[in-house]
Amino acid sequence: MNEVGRRVWAIAEGYIPPVSTGESRELTSHETVCILNAGEEPAHVEIMIFFADRPPAGPYKVEVTPERTCHVRFNDLKEPAPIPPNTDFSSVISSDVPIVVQHTRLDSRQAALALLSTMAFPVA
Amino acid sequence: MNEVGRRVWAIAEGYIPPVSTGESRELTSHETVCILNAGEEPAHVEIMIFFADRPPAGPYKVEVTPERTCHVRFNDLKEPAPIPPNTDFSSVISSDVPIVVQHTRLDSRQAALALLSTMAFPVA
Amino acid sequence: MNEVGRRVWAIAEGYIPPVSTGESRELTSHETVCILNAGEEPAHVEIMIFFADRPPAGPYKVEVTPERTCHVRFNDLKEPAPIPPNTDFSSVISSDVPIVVQHTRLDSRQAALALLSTMAFPVA
Amino acid sequence: MNEVGRRVWAIAEGYIPPVSTGESRELTSHETVCILNAGEEPAHVEIMIFFADRPPAGPYKVEVTPERTCHVRFNDLKEPAPIPPNTDFSSVISSDVPIVVQHTRLDSRQAALALLSTMAFPVA
Repeated sequence: MNEVGRRVWAIAEGYIPPVSTGESRELTSHETVCILNAGEEPAHVEIMIFFADRPPAGPYKVEVTPERTCHVRFNDLKEPAPIPPNTDFSSVISSDVPIVVQHTRLDSRQAALALLSTMAFPVA
Repeated sequence: MNEVGRRVWAIAEGYIPPVSTGESRELTSHETVCILNAGEEPAHVEIMIFFADRPPAGPYKVEVTPERTCHVRFNDLKEPAPIPPNTDFSSVISSDVPIVVQHTRLDSRQAALALLSTMAFPVA
Repeated sequence: MNEVGRRVWAIAEGYIPPVSTGESRELTSHETVCILNAGEEPAHVEIMIFFADRPPAGPYKVEVTPERTCHVRFNDLKEPAPIPPNTDFSSVISSDVPIVVQHTRLDSRQAALALLSTMAFPVA
Repeated sequence: MNEVGRRVWAIAEGYIPPVSTGESRELTSHETVCILNAGEEPAHVEIMIFFADRPPAGPYKVEVTPERTCHVRFNDLKEPAPIPPNTDFSSVISSDVPIVVQHTRLDSRQAALALLSTMAFPVA
């Protein structure tokens, strides 16, 4: 389980829908990066955010404890700066141990929610 | 056909929506792992579930007969323990013969269903 | 362009929704395999279908002309036998030249359509 | 970051929904290719479009500046010719430096939007 995944991943798509019809946290529109650390060492993860028209932001730091998963909402990232909603972005996720990274969005802007998901691209 | 796929797969995203608007089994919210065994030997599959805040659960055991597919709903896994709804998780799927693994969710919490799907990540 | 893709692909998920709310062909529920032949030779494609509880069906034969795409609806496959709706299946797609294969479903069972899509798994 | 991604990608699925229920640009039905250039050199990107029943169109040229993302709507491509809506297509995306490519559709033909997304297939 210490070799499950890769150390660098990329997600070309990124977008936090600016509004929601659901009121609960579960049904609030969100953009998520799901990180699995199946190994026995902590994963020190750094996320860099790339925009269309300004320099990259980050690194946003996340620690994933051994044998745990962490579903990080881009909406919740605050340091060094919140990611603006309604803005196109991409992300590169780096870790010191192997992890598995998947990208999911829940969009509840309209009367019913929509979902998308894909494995991130394993860079290295 | 005996070499179609890989022996270890990972899915970083996992979530069983806690409610449904559809009443039939088909339209009940569900989280699914689709497993294809295209080969001539039975596939003895073990699924480990990773959570955000507790130790991993499993292995959940599934046998996929030769030249058959098995669409397993995480909702239906009971042994060693049911997977709680409304809870983030990840999974690692291991098999003694090559299989192909795809992740699909049907979410019917709101008035219309939503779908997501992605190939799992081929670990080994 | 003659080397764009692979010769064998697999899709573990497969399901033709049995009903539709849309009336047009575009909004009829469908399960699709999109095949790109970017090369200069015709692609002779064979699709094998795997079920949960019966022997595999096929091969279903599709020819994709050079430098063309072909979006095949599983709903439309008739020879050697139609694929039943509301039934879990998987598929393996083989070609004599490199192709690219993507899986998409449009599900309009409820009042609004839902979509899923993922690249197929490149087997060989 | 100069080696994040690949130089050639393919997307077998392609379809611009012909109508929308949303009125804003954000909620207009669209088919998107998201391109991340995480490196320090500009990416000169060329997109070729493949149809079911006519010769390929393109190349459509896009430049992605260093350390930036570009979410290109196929709807917006005008030179050498607009891509017709309600028409099946595929695409091959080539770059002179490594990029990461993801495919996303927002379909708002019906009363609620639907989403799909997948990483493109890394050809070379």
